[in-house]
Amino acid sequence: MFSIDHIGVAVTSLAAAKGVYEKLGLNVSAEEVVKAEQVRVVMVPLGESRLELLEPTSDNSVIAKFIAKRGEGLHHVSLRVPNLETVVARLKKDGVRLVSDEIKVGAGGHRYVFVHPSGAGGVLLELVEAAG
Amino acid sequence: MFSIDHIGVAVTSLAAAKGVYEKLGLNVSAEEVVKAEQVRVVMVPLGESRLELLEPTSDNSVIAKFIAKRGEGLHHVSLRVPNLETVVARLKKDGVRLVSDEIKVGAGGHRYVFVHPSGAGGVLLELVEAAG
Repeated sequence: MFSIDHIGVAVTSLAAAKGVYEKLGLNVSAEEVVKAEQVRVVMVPLGESRLELLEPTSDNSVIAKFIAKRGEGLHHVSLRVPNLETVVARLKKDGVRLVSDEIKVGAGGHRYVFVHPSGAGGVLLELVEAAG
Repeated sequence: MFSIDHIGVAVTSLAAAKGVYEKLGLNVSAEEVVKAEQVRVVMVPLGESRLELLEPTSDNSVIAKFIAKRGEGLHHVSLRVPNLETVVARLKKDGVRLVSDEIKVGAGGHRYVFVHPSGAGGVLLELVEAAG
């Protein structure tokens, strides 16, 4: 079963960006720093999905570079997929361009790949393995 | 209960953009024209949410203008909210900028407002009333 795991949003200020979600009455998480990605993050749970607001902690972070080029806003969409190996093998066979050919392991052990925006209507599409 | 209703994606070609979702094995809908918005649409169901791929049918459509300015990619996020009147009244009271002050009625009778990106970390945020 596929579903939306999260939507990543690049922002210059978590304090400013999370306001609207708090005003909607949503349970915005505490801020957390993800050193490897050079970002400070808050999560906004939304049903089976969540928004991830990402504020760069360094001008070298991918998120800082995105904001410099495009401004604040929607950065990527992450989909849960049932069997990541199978899905990645099928995409490669079908000639879909991935950002990197190998499945990577991120914070908390989650496994992921990114489909290149050129093959997904300009969307940076992350695929993560669904739990269980 | 808040949840993600859909994510809108601006694309120059539905035929090209939907390929990756078909290759993932997802049930991409048939194309449908929404005259009022001057777009051709396909839906990609994802759990309780969906992606809406939006291809402009006219250079005057909002989606055509977005693509001309920013290129293809993520356009808006739509959240289901439990009581739209109450939510909109609260946001106005809290000084959150909306694209238009009135609740609008769209195709199929759904009621919606857009929060202005300046108040939501650069995200064009649609709020729609949850059914039931």
